[in-house]
Amino acid sequence: MLIVMDAHASPAQIADVCRAIEQLGYVPHAMPGPTRTAIGITGNKGPIEESQTLTRFPGVREIIRVTSPYKLVSREFREADTLVQVGAAVFGGPTVAVIGGPCTVESREQTLTVAAHVRELGAVALRGGAYKPRTSPYAFNGLGEQGLRILAEARAATGLPIVTEVMDVETLPLVLEYADMLQIGARNMQNYPLLRAAGRANRPVLLKRGFAATVKDLLLAAEYILSEGNQQVVLCERGIRTFDDSARFTLDIGAIPIIKQLSHLPVIVDPSHASGRADRVIPLARAAIAAGADGLIVEVHHDPLHAQCDGEQALLPSAFAQMMDECGKIAAAVGRTL
Amino acid sequence: MLIVMDAHASPAQIADVCRAIEQLGYVPHAMPGPTRTAIGITGNKGPIEESQTLTRFPGVREIIRVTSPYKLVSREFREADTLVQVGAAVFGGPTVAVIGGPCTVESREQTLTVAAHVRELGAVALRGGAYKPRTSPYAFNGLGEQGLRILAEARAATGLPIVTEVMDVETLPLVLEYADMLQIGARNMQNYPLLRAAGRANRPVLLKRGFAATVKDLLLAAEYILSEGNQQVVLCERGIRTFDDSARFTLDIGAIPIIKQLSHLPVIVDPSHASGRADRVIPLARAAIAAGADGLIVEVHHDPLHAQCDGEQALLPSAFAQMMDECGKIAAAVGRTL
Amino acid sequence: MLIVMDAHASPAQIADVCRAIEQLGYVPHAMPGPTRTAIGITGNKGPIEESQTLTRFPGVREIIRVTSPYKLVSREFREADTLVQVGAAVFGGPTVAVIGGPCTVESREQTLTVAAHVRELGAVALRGGAYKPRTSPYAFNGLGEQGLRILAEARAATGLPIVTEVMDVETLPLVLEYADMLQIGARNMQNYPLLRAAGRANRPVLLKRGFAATVKDLLLAAEYILSEGNQQVVLCERGIRTFDDSARFTLDIGAIPIIKQLSHLPVIVDPSHASGRADRVIPLARAAIAAGADGLIVEVHHDPLHAQCDGEQALLPSAFAQMMDECGKIAAAVGRTL
Amino acid sequence: MLIVMDAHASPAQIADVCRAIEQLGYVPHAMPGPTRTAIGITGNKGPIEESQTLTRFPGVREIIRVTSPYKLVSREFREADTLVQVGAAVFGGPTVAVIGGPCTVESREQTLTVAAHVRELGAVALRGGAYKPRTSPYAFNGLGEQGLRILAEARAATGLPIVTEVMDVETLPLVLEYADMLQIGARNMQNYPLLRAAGRANRPVLLKRGFAATVKDLLLAAEYILSEGNQQVVLCERGIRTFDDSARFTLDIGAIPIIKQLSHLPVIVDPSHASGRADRVIPLARAAIAAGADGLIVEVHHDPLHAQCDGEQALLPSAFAQMMDECGKIAAAVGRTL
Repeated sequence: MLIVMDAHASPAQIADVCRAIEQLGYVPHAMPGPTRTAIGITGNKGPIEESQTLTRFPGVREIIRVTSPYKLVSREFREADTLVQVGAAVFGGPTVAVIGGPCTVESREQTLTVAAHVRELGAVALRGGAYKPRTSPYAFNGLGEQGLRILAEARAATGLPIVTEVMDVETLPLVLEYADMLQIGARNMQNYPLLRAAGRANRPVLLKRGFAATVKDLLLAAEYILSEGNQQVVLCERGIRTFDDSARFTLDIGAIPIIKQLSHLPVIVDPSHASGRADRVIPLARAAIAAGADGLIVEVHHDPLHAQCDGEQALLPSAFAQMMDECGKIAAAVGRTL
Repeated sequence: MLIVMDAHASPAQIADVCRAIEQLGYVPHAMPGPTRTAIGITGNKGPIEESQTLTRFPGVREIIRVTSPYKLVSREFREADTLVQVGAAVFGGPTVAVIGGPCTVESREQTLTVAAHVRELGAVALRGGAYKPRTSPYAFNGLGEQGLRILAEARAATGLPIVTEVMDVETLPLVLEYADMLQIGARNMQNYPLLRAAGRANRPVLLKRGFAATVKDLLLAAEYILSEGNQQVVLCERGIRTFDDSARFTLDIGAIPIIKQLSHLPVIVDPSHASGRADRVIPLARAAIAAGADGLIVEVHHDPLHAQCDGEQALLPSAFAQMMDECGKIAAAVGRTL
Repeated sequence: MLIVMDAHASPAQIADVCRAIEQLGYVPHAMPGPTRTAIGITGNKGPIEESQTLTRFPGVREIIRVTSPYKLVSREFREADTLVQVGAAVFGGPTVAVIGGPCTVESREQTLTVAAHVRELGAVALRGGAYKPRTSPYAFNGLGEQGLRILAEARAATGLPIVTEVMDVETLPLVLEYADMLQIGARNMQNYPLLRAAGRANRPVLLKRGFAATVKDLLLAAEYILSEGNQQVVLCERGIRTFDDSARFTLDIGAIPIIKQLSHLPVIVDPSHASGRADRVIPLARAAIAAGADGLIVEVHHDPLHAQCDGEQALLPSAFAQMMDECGKIAAAVGRTL
Repeated sequence: MLIVMDAHASPAQIADVCRAIEQLGYVPHAMPGPTRTAIGITGNKGPIEESQTLTRFPGVREIIRVTSPYKLVSREFREADTLVQVGAAVFGGPTVAVIGGPCTVESREQTLTVAAHVRELGAVALRGGAYKPRTSPYAFNGLGEQGLRILAEARAATGLPIVTEVMDVETLPLVLEYADMLQIGARNMQNYPLLRAAGRANRPVLLKRGFAATVKDLLLAAEYILSEGNQQVVLCERGIRTFDDSARFTLDIGAIPIIKQLSHLPVIVDPSHASGRADRVIPLARAAIAAGADGLIVEVHHDPLHAQCDGEQALLPSAFAQMMDECGKIAAAVGRTL
C-alpha cells in the first residue's frame, strides 16, 4: 500500500502518518519524490482494512492499494485451471461447452422441443428460467416450481444437465432439488446473502457479471462463493452498460483474457443478452471462443415470434445449428473442440 | 408503439407485419416515409408485451416503444407530490429532510454519540447499517440484530426515527421490528423478491438507485413496491458509474429534476457515497438541494479515523454542522426550509 | 418521425402540433393510444431539422426520429461491400488485411527494422506516427516531416504502403506527399474541418472511432468524408471508455457486426490501443477476425523496452508472428484468408 | 512511482527491475509485502516517461504513477485562484459570471435581440457561434465571418464582450479579430494543434470538457494552453456521456469541487448542453452555483421554435430572467454575487 502526500505536506504531517502506520502494526517507508512524498507500507498480511482512515490525516492526498482484495479465486492462489463438471459437461477444459435453451420455461411442449433441438445440435447443458427477474413488475416472471419440473422432465428426456436461475435464498432449496447448476443472474451478482448461500450449496454455480460490475467486482463476488467452500464456479461475461446505444449491452470481450490471467476459474460468454438481437448473436459467439472463452450460454427457441420473453434475441434451431458449426471451426482454430 | 421497417422492405413484408399486429388485437397505421415505412400501433391498453416478437418479421428494422412501462409511480398517474412520513420527518414537502448517522453501527457508544450529534444539528432521522453489503467477503459486514437493538436505543434517546438497510427477505421481519424506514441499497435495487416483500410491508422505503440503473430502471424498481400496495417510497440518487476516475461515483444531479417531472415520489441525494471523500460532500449536498432534492442522507462519524467502514467519506460533527448551515441557506434560496 | 404527447395533452395542444407540422410542409397522423397520443409525420424527404423545435410546444413529451441521419455510408444507400485499395492491400474483400508497425517513428533504424519484420510476417501495410496526439503537452509528439521521410524510405525498402496520422488541416498537404492512407485518430473523429479536408483529398482514409463516440457518431463522421466525394474510407474500432478499469479501453466487439449491417464500408480493429498491454493483444486480434472484421492495425516494436510511446502495448516481432499465425487460422475458420 | 510485482516474481526478476530503474537514473526501493513485492522509485524530477517500458519486464504486474502529469494548472503550482478578465467580466472572483446568448448566430436581428435581452437581465458576456461543429454534415454549421461581424455589432450595441467558438487553426486569426474570449468546444478538447495555437494567442480561452474526458484529461488539455504561455483559461463542465438515456448528457456536478481542489483555474458550467431541454436547465444552473462554479454559459433565444440549432434547450428571455433571479439567490447563499 502506498500513501501519497500533498506536495505541500509538512515534515510533521508526514511523520504523523508514519506514526499512525506504526500504530496499526505496519512498517512505513517514506519516499520523497520530486513534487511530493509517498509512504510505502509493509508488514501487512492482507488488505489493510483500516487504511482508508489514513485519508483523513492532514496532508494525505490519496491511498493506493496494491494487494488484490480477492484471494481464493486468484491465479496466484491456484495456478492450474479449475475444471467445473456439470453432468457430463466440463467447463474449463479443452472442450468449449455450450449451454443452450429457452430464456424462459413457458410450457412442457416448448421446453422439450427446444431441449431436443439443442441436444441434437451439440449443446452439453440445457438452460431455462423458472424464476425470471424482470425489470417491470408487470412482465411474465416464470412458471416457478412447475417450470422446474418441466426442466427435470427435459433432463430425463435428453440427458442434458439443467442450468437454471435462483433469485433468492428462499427458493434456493427448491431450486436445488432440480438444478444441476445454479445460475446467479447479473442483477443478483452483488446479492451477498444469495452468494453465501450458493457457497454453502454443494452445486456448481454459473455467476453472471453485473452489467455495471468491474472485473474486480466479479472476482470478489465469486470470492464470496469460494470463501464458503464451494469451488465450482463458472464466471459469465454478458455485456456491460456503456454510453453506446447501438446494442442492448456492450460485450466486454477483453474481459475474457483478463479473467483468464487473474483467475483460475472457467469463464463463458452469453452472446444473446449482450447483443439483444438474434441476427448479431453468432458473430459474438465466434469472437468469444476466439478470445479464449471456455463456453457459451445461448438462448434458443423454436418459435421466437411467440416467446414470452426475449424472443428477439433467441436463435432458431437452424441458426443455433449454424452457430455450432461456425463456432466448431473457431474452436478448432484455437486448438480446442466444441 | 412504432415499427420501423427497413428501407428495402417489400410491400408484402409491410403487409405481413400489419396483419400480425391485427392478430394481436391492435390497429396498424402504415406511414410511408422518404426512405422507409413506419407502422404505428393503436388500440393497446398498456405496453405491448408481445411486441418484441415483431422484430423477428422479415423487413423489420426496429421497434420503438412509446408507452411508459411504469404507471403507479408516474406523475401522469398522480399529479400531486407524494409525502412520505417517517416519525416526525416528512419527505416531499416544503422542508428538506436530512438523514444523518454513521455508515455502520459499530458500537453502542459510537451510535449514541453520533445520534446525539446529528439530532442536535438538525437531522430528522438517524441512519446506520446493521447489515452491510460489502464488495469483499472479508470486510466487516455489520453487527446484525445487535446493531438493530443499538439503533432502537438511539431512537429512544434522541426521538429520531431509524433508517436502516434490509439486505434480504429472510431478515426483513427482524428489521421491521426495529426500522422506521427500510433502506434498499443500490446493489439490491433490482432484487425483485426483496422489492415485492418491501411492497407488502407497511413501512416507508428508501430505495437507492443502482449505480448502473437508468432513471427508468429506478422508477420501475419503485413500481414493484407500489404495485404491491406500498405507496411510501422515497427515491435516492447516490452516484452512478462512469468512465471518470476522479471520484468514487458520478453524482447524477440532472436526475433530480427529471425524476420530479416523471414521478410524484420524493427524491433525496446521498452525497457521501457519490463523492467518497469527506472534503467533497458539502458542495454536493448544496447542489442537491439547489437542484430540487427533497432531502439528504449523509454519513457522520465522531471519530472517522477509527470507523470500520467508509471512514474516508464520513463528516465529522463539526463538518456536518457546517453542511447544515450552508444547506439551510440554499434551502431558503429555493423557498424551502431545512 | 414521431411526436409523443403528454398523457394529459389537451385536444387543442394536439391540434396545435399538427398544425405546426403542416406549416413545415409535412403531413401529421395523430394516433391516440391508451395513455397518450402519438403523432406520426410523413411527407419529409430526409431528417426534419426543424423538428426539434416541436419539443417546445405545450403538451409535447418527446420526439422520436426514425430516418437515419447518415446516408452515403449506409448499407441502404449501397448494398455491396465497398473495397478500399491501398497499394497492393485491399480492405473489405475476402482477405483480412493487417497493418503493422511502430506506434511512432522514432528513428530510421527503428522504423526500417520494424517494417522489415512486419513485411516478412505478412502485414500488407506499415503504420507509424510522425505526428502524435499526446494527452500531455510534455510527452514526445513525433518527428514531424523527418518521420514522414523515414516512412517513405521504409516503403521503398519493403514495398508496403504507408498509413500515418494527420492531425490538422495545416499539415495535411505535407502528409499527403508521403502517406498512402491518411489516419484520422480517435481524438480527431469529430474534427469536422479535418474530416472535410480529408474528404477532398484523393486518398484512402482510416477513420478511428472516438472513445466516446457511438456507432452512429462514427458513421456520421464518415459521412462527412463521403459527402465531400471521397468514398475510400475504412472504419476502425479501437475501444471505448467505460466504467471498467481492468483495461485501458473496452473493445466494442459488437460494433463490428453492427457496422457491417448498417454500412457498406470496411471496418478493422486496433487491438493494441484497446487492450493497452502486449500480453492481451492477441486474443483481441483473434476475436476481431472471428467477429467479422476486415483487418487489424497492430503496434509492433523490436525493442519495446526502449519505445518512446506505448511500449507496453507493442508486440515483439516474435509475438506478431504468433498473432499472424493464430489469426490466419481464425480467418480460415470464417472462410477468409490473411 | 510504484512498480507492483507478481506474487510469484522471483528475486532475480525483482533485482532485474531494480537494476533497470537505476539505469534510468532513479533510485529503487524494494518493499516486500504479504503476497507480493512493490518497488518504489525516487530521484525523478517529473513524470517518468520511460517508466511504461518497465511493464515489459518479466514479473511486473503493473505500474502505479504518483506524480501528477499536469503542472502549471495545478493548485500545488499556484495556490491562489486565477482570475480571468474578459471585458468587464471576471471569472474566478467573488461574482458568479453568466455568459448568455444564442447557440448560433442566425441573423443580425436575432443576435441583437437576444444580446439586448441577456444584457438587460444581467449577463456579463455574450455567447454565439459563427462556426458550429455539427455531428451531421448536413446540419447548419454557422454563418462564418458574417456571424463574427454580427457579434461585433452586438458587442458595440450592448458593451458585452464576445465569447465564440474557434474550430481550427486556420480560422483562428480571423476569430481573433472579433472574439474577446475564444471558446474551444468539447469535440476539440484534445485537438492539440488548436490548443497550442490558443496558447500562443493573447486572449482568454473557454475550454469545454470533452464528453468522454476525465477531469485529468481536461486539466492536461488546459496544460497545453498554459505551457504555451497563456494563463487566461476558464474550464467548463458541460456533461459527460454515460449509460443513462434520460438526458442528453450527465452533468458531472462533482467535477466542480474536484477541479477547484486540483487547479487554480476558474470553472463554469453549461447547463444547456448538459440537460438538452429548456425545462431542465434552471435546476442545473442553480446546482452549479451551489457546488461552487464560478459562472454559467447558457443558451438563450427569443424564438426557440424557429432556432436553427439546439432550439429545444434554449431558454426564452423570460426563463433566463427566472434563472438569473433564482441563481442570484443561490449565489447569495454561498456568499457570492451574480
